[in-house]
Amino acid sequence: MSSMIGNRLKLTIFGESHGRAVGAVIDGLPPGIYLDLDYIKYEMGRRKPGESSFSTSRSEDDDFQIISGYFEKKTTGAPLCALISNKDQHSEDYANIKNLLRPGHADYTGFIKYAGYNDYRGGGHFSGRLTAPLVFAGAVAKQILEKLDIFIGGHIKSIKDISEEGFNKIKVSRYDILRLRAKDFPVINESIGKKMKECILKAKDERDSVGGVIETAVINLDAGLGEPFFDSVESRLAHILFSIPAVKGVEFGEGFSITAMKGSEANDGYTVIDGKIETYTNHNGGILGGITTGMPLIFQVAVKPTPSIGRQQKTVDIKKLEEVEICVKGRHDPCIVPRVVPVVEAATALTILDFMLDREGEQGFRDKLRM
Amino acid sequence: MSSMIGNRLKLTIFGESHGRAVGAVIDGLPPGIYLDLDYIKYEMGRRKPGESSFSTSRSEDDDFQIISGYFEKKTTGAPLCALISNKDQHSEDYANIKNLLRPGHADYTGFIKYAGYNDYRGGGHFSGRLTAPLVFAGAVAKQILEKLDIFIGGHIKSIKDISEEGFNKIKVSRYDILRLRAKDFPVINESIGKKMKECILKAKDERDSVGGVIETAVINLDAGLGEPFFDSVESRLAHILFSIPAVKGVEFGEGFSITAMKGSEANDGYTVIDGKIETYTNHNGGILGGITTGMPLIFQVAVKPTPSIGRQQKTVDIKKLEEVEICVKGRHDPCIVPRVVPVVEAATALTILDFMLDREGEQGFRDKLRM
Amino acid sequence: MSSMIGNRLKLTIFGESHGRAVGAVIDGLPPGIYLDLDYIKYEMGRRKPGESSFSTSRSEDDDFQIISGYFEKKTTGAPLCALISNKDQHSEDYANIKNLLRPGHADYTGFIKYAGYNDYRGGGHFSGRLTAPLVFAGAVAKQILEKLDIFIGGHIKSIKDISEEGFNKIKVSRYDILRLRAKDFPVINESIGKKMKECILKAKDERDSVGGVIETAVINLDAGLGEPFFDSVESRLAHILFSIPAVKGVEFGEGFSITAMKGSEANDGYTVIDGKIETYTNHNGGILGGITTGMPLIFQVAVKPTPSIGRQQKTVDIKKLEEVEICVKGRHDPCIVPRVVPVVEAATALTILDFMLDREGEQGFRDKLRM
Amino acid sequence: MSSMIGNRLKLTIFGESHGRAVGAVIDGLPPGIYLDLDYIKYEMGRRKPGESSFSTSRSEDDDFQIISGYFEKKTTGAPLCALISNKDQHSEDYANIKNLLRPGHADYTGFIKYAGYNDYRGGGHFSGRLTAPLVFAGAVAKQILEKLDIFIGGHIKSIKDISEEGFNKIKVSRYDILRLRAKDFPVINESIGKKMKECILKAKDERDSVGGVIETAVINLDAGLGEPFFDSVESRLAHILFSIPAVKGVEFGEGFSITAMKGSEANDGYTVIDGKIETYTNHNGGILGGITTGMPLIFQVAVKPTPSIGRQQKTVDIKKLEEVEICVKGRHDPCIVPRVVPVVEAATALTILDFMLDREGEQGFRDKLRM
Repeated sequence: MSSMIGNRLKLTIFGESHGRAVGAVIDGLPPGIYLDLDYIKYEMGRRKPGESSFSTSRSEDDDFQIISGYFEKKTTGAPLCALISNKDQHSEDYANIKNLLRPGHADYTGFIKYAGYNDYRGGGHFSGRLTAPLVFAGAVAKQILEKLDIFIGGHIKSIKDISEEGFNKIKVSRYDILRLRAKDFPVINESIGKKMKECILKAKDERDSVGGVIETAVINLDAGLGEPFFDSVESRLAHILFSIPAVKGVEFGEGFSITAMKGSEANDGYTVIDGKIETYTNHNGGILGGITTGMPLIFQVAVKPTPSIGRQQKTVDIKKLEEVEICVKGRHDPCIVPRVVPVVEAATALTILDFMLDREGEQGFRDKLRM
Repeated sequence: MSSMIGNRLKLTIFGESHGRAVGAVIDGLPPGIYLDLDYIKYEMGRRKPGESSFSTSRSEDDDFQIISGYFEKKTTGAPLCALISNKDQHSEDYANIKNLLRPGHADYTGFIKYAGYNDYRGGGHFSGRLTAPLVFAGAVAKQILEKLDIFIGGHIKSIKDISEEGFNKIKVSRYDILRLRAKDFPVINESIGKKMKECILKAKDERDSVGGVIETAVINLDAGLGEPFFDSVESRLAHILFSIPAVKGVEFGEGFSITAMKGSEANDGYTVIDGKIETYTNHNGGILGGITTGMPLIFQVAVKPTPSIGRQQKTVDIKKLEEVEICVKGRHDPCIVPRVVPVVEAATALTILDFMLDREGEQGFRDKLRM
Repeated sequence: MSSMIGNRLKLTIFGESHGRAVGAVIDGLPPGIYLDLDYIKYEMGRRKPGESSFSTSRSEDDDFQIISGYFEKKTTGAPLCALISNKDQHSEDYANIKNLLRPGHADYTGFIKYAGYNDYRGGGHFSGRLTAPLVFAGAVAKQILEKLDIFIGGHIKSIKDISEEGFNKIKVSRYDILRLRAKDFPVINESIGKKMKECILKAKDERDSVGGVIETAVINLDAGLGEPFFDSVESRLAHILFSIPAVKGVEFGEGFSITAMKGSEANDGYTVIDGKIETYTNHNGGILGGITTGMPLIFQVAVKPTPSIGRQQKTVDIKKLEEVEICVKGRHDPCIVPRVVPVVEAATALTILDFMLDREGEQGFRDKLRM
Repeated sequence: MSSMIGNRLKLTIFGESHGRAVGAVIDGLPPGIYLDLDYIKYEMGRRKPGESSFSTSRSEDDDFQIISGYFEKKTTGAPLCALISNKDQHSEDYANIKNLLRPGHADYTGFIKYAGYNDYRGGGHFSGRLTAPLVFAGAVAKQILEKLDIFIGGHIKSIKDISEEGFNKIKVSRYDILRLRAKDFPVINESIGKKMKECILKAKDERDSVGGVIETAVINLDAGLGEPFFDSVESRLAHILFSIPAVKGVEFGEGFSITAMKGSEANDGYTVIDGKIETYTNHNGGILGGITTGMPLIFQVAVKPTPSIGRQQKTVDIKKLEEVEICVKGRHDPCIVPRVVPVVEAATALTILDFMLDREGEQGFRDKLRM
């Protein structure tokens, strides 16, 4: 189903860009967990547009309202529903291009899929706006995981052709992750980050856009999480990551680069450190046979350049079947990569918490939290 | 669940490398479809080891036996189960390295996951042997799709650092696909293919291994297949592709390379050709918003070097928690990429057929087949 | 998952009796279907309490607000979310019996399940209030089915020991169904209905409660809907029917009474009427082998007496583990059977529409609706 | 999907009555569990036909062969597949009635559903033969549950109009269950059992058949198992029970009889016994709000008379659309109720184990087993 995901922890998202609200229902949360609403607000702020010159000037008010599943500041165990109202919509921006297919967007495929009945304004249900409830849900999952010392964090590995070093695949610390999370523009190397920002501003000046790569790490996972084959950690993570609009590639560990290595280089040899089995290297990104090794889980996600650009583009009027030119008005991000970082973290948190609940069960998980 | 996948067309796989048999159950096949068993045998032969000097000398007999769901040479609509017996096993090769974790394999994670009770011989349930039932099921799906003129084919895009040109993303023909399928070593450019083979033989001589990238195309898909978000074509394809052992990366269209393009370059402009909407370019690989555009669906898969190598490697004895050296005996592929090509095609066929059945329904699908 | 059901048409419900709102998300509705909101309001009115002297005086305002998936008076194909606000709550009625387990309710099992963190007020998520979003969703499904001439209707077969004749299992007409739907107290025989009402009023006077049996028919279904075994029509219908609070039994056709017949009596012999295969009798209730026969689908549901009664009952204080007496204050239905009739119809409509979409696919279904 | 069921513990069944074999794949079993194969054989013997004069003289050889997921006498945690070969088939019995719809069977609905391509011999995939793999899987689940002191047992509550007393709903002992399991014809009261057998023999003499009611108990379940609404214990149990061929009704606790009680009678008052909360009565059959109360879980299942009878019946030739008479040759059970008892127990065991694994997780469950 298009709007539902998860095995034990199920997420449903709903809403359209220019409808009343977008929202999420999370089913399967353990009961009795205190939720830090400021933590959630902070995460939603990271995704929110209009925060800086690097993103769209649409000023969304991402205030959420919890409708159910939350009582006396704690989860009840019943489905947790949250609504995020839509405000500051310029629906008229879309009225005059209603039948013109914006290149790189889902206008054409959405029209075919829904036989022309979909809400076309601002991409409707296909909008990146739907990542707001995803970040909400992820912020719930992420703070639960942090109670178990599991931290998830990402950085902007590259913008267009400007890239920085990746995480040290053997050692990523909680400190590294929290420091990145505090940044507006999460990079490890600030001077490379400055060049990335210049690249984005240049694209903005040219009424064009750029994309980039996000690298994410999950630390302090136990070995043994996941399943062989169809419920592998890679399968389930890739599934949700490719659901994020604009994601066109996912790779774990060395990813595509591992294909240029020899087996003798790519294999991560084992060692024993303080009575615990670790690997010398981590080219496999913390997963073997679909299951976590206990080393940091590391992966990269390719985000394409924002399709909405203020330049003339060749397209088609779908009603008239005529070739026309389109220039997408409205407020657009010249680069959505910084805003996608918390979305990737949210998707990851939901998936990891789902795997944890699957392994521990509802009782075992509460025991682990010492509740 | 580790061994089941699919929405409407559900596949279950089972078995271990050194058990009695591996097998598959396919539920949801439309009834009344004539199955060409020679077609299936050919596909299983493409995956079979021992076919050339490039692969392991284990001579598996991949003869399958259909147990159910098949009557008077046609599908019945009831679950189709097939068994593929395991023969020519050298289980003793594994007895003396039982407690030594083979680097790059799932020995460690499998041990932790299954608390030491898993069948360790030849990787057990984690073995690449489990791709045999996947290819069986895929060969059923692929021949059904071909009745609707939908063709799926892959080529070896690179081996280690030797790569050939990719598919022309705008036009891949049925002829291109069938020509590749007829090859032992499916490359577009034979002279580059020759260098790839030399690279593999060199790795073999060094008792080492190499990996590579597989590019796959699906042609003649209608626009409108798939769903936004969690049932996007990219999500569902990536899910099953990452279930294939040794896959570490998946990208659609330009994939990671699209991040180096500007929006104005990456967007695929629309045109009308013979009354049908197409795109001038196909950087998005035939998918927008998770839904097919009707252009060729094109993606790439990164396959890591075979972890089994005949060289000394550092590892750990999991029972003694001592560091030791391991040298994996037995017959190994210096490169599994050629054998993974039909596996990727099979996984793709199952996913596409599942999407088709979902859209058409059992009755509509039969109508489409004019049955 | 507790709050989600359906294969192709997925329903998620959320909310608590005394929270902000209850609601539903429906995923998988075909796009472009005009929704008659008055139809939905009428159905919600049938379930609404406070409508007559037979039900609780809590005056719920069951106005719903559609949040998403609805554009220009039609479904968009994206998830349709609706909220129903909670008003007129007397939460204080529950404060002083917080730790006293109300017999027949889910207080004890909910406490254990959710470790005491569930919202206890008015049954919280276990409340019959959660059937409001179910009726909302069912009213959407029911009006879609009616476009295909499929009608679903129920009557009160019995209240306590007073029962009326059932549907004629061979011929139930659209007229029969619509006439019952127009009634406050849906019975076929009004004079027996009068006795049933007297029985309910007597129970009310005694501060006690009564239950009954609801019989439901679905007409004009094609033969061939459903699956053998685990997706049988009986399995899927019973699944959702037993999710309705207070349901303790489900039977199809003659149900338990068929066990008193001989095979030669119970078997429904075939005949041909106007070129169409029918059965002389319909003891199997329109289902054989889990699949519809094309005869009316008929089943009965047992509804237990309302557990909330204004009499002294023996119970336990769960915090003190002491035996105490409880007298449940507040406004209670002496009999919920009339209000459960539309809930059963709603659950049935969702299940049948799900089966139809599964068989027809999204395209075939739209063709059937001539859209 | 027709052939798959379960959340965490997934069962797939496959096969046809007159095909090579029927079988099961069980995914999600905890690893390291010793399986008593004699226990499984005994259970399969209980279901096996030809054991007494009360059942068909078809002498099935229900020997099973475990194909995967079992290593060194223990479960591995990987999917466990078992095959049960089909022997002693009299396929020719079915050839001459190929187009004649046997009343009460799935011949008509199967023909429509599968467009005439289903294996019609002996009911094909619809055959009661498919309950053999269900009993196999259930015997695995049942012996695992017994390690946790959870016992499941059924008795023949009635045959046609002859019925015995039910279980004492407050106290059913392990001894009661094991004593019933040892009987060929499991009744509590042997003298009533004798009358039931006479009733069956009479039906056999008349070339007719009879049905009956099976009552089942599950003891020593903890309180708190199950979920509200769509994953209620009643919903999930009823789902699988209605998948068993010939089942037409399911009720929990007092079931339909509870509708004749007043609320003050039907409510089960709470008490404290040895520091543990129990109910004085158990009219709700051990479930409230979809969740177990810790009291015995008790339910009844209605089994219709065997549709295959050796008498003339009115039917239709589906190819000619002509009314004809049919007399079903071959070997038939005059009553399948005794053989359905272990099938009901098996279905129950799979469902309960699934709920347990869901709550405990794979690690917690192993801890509970002290493994």
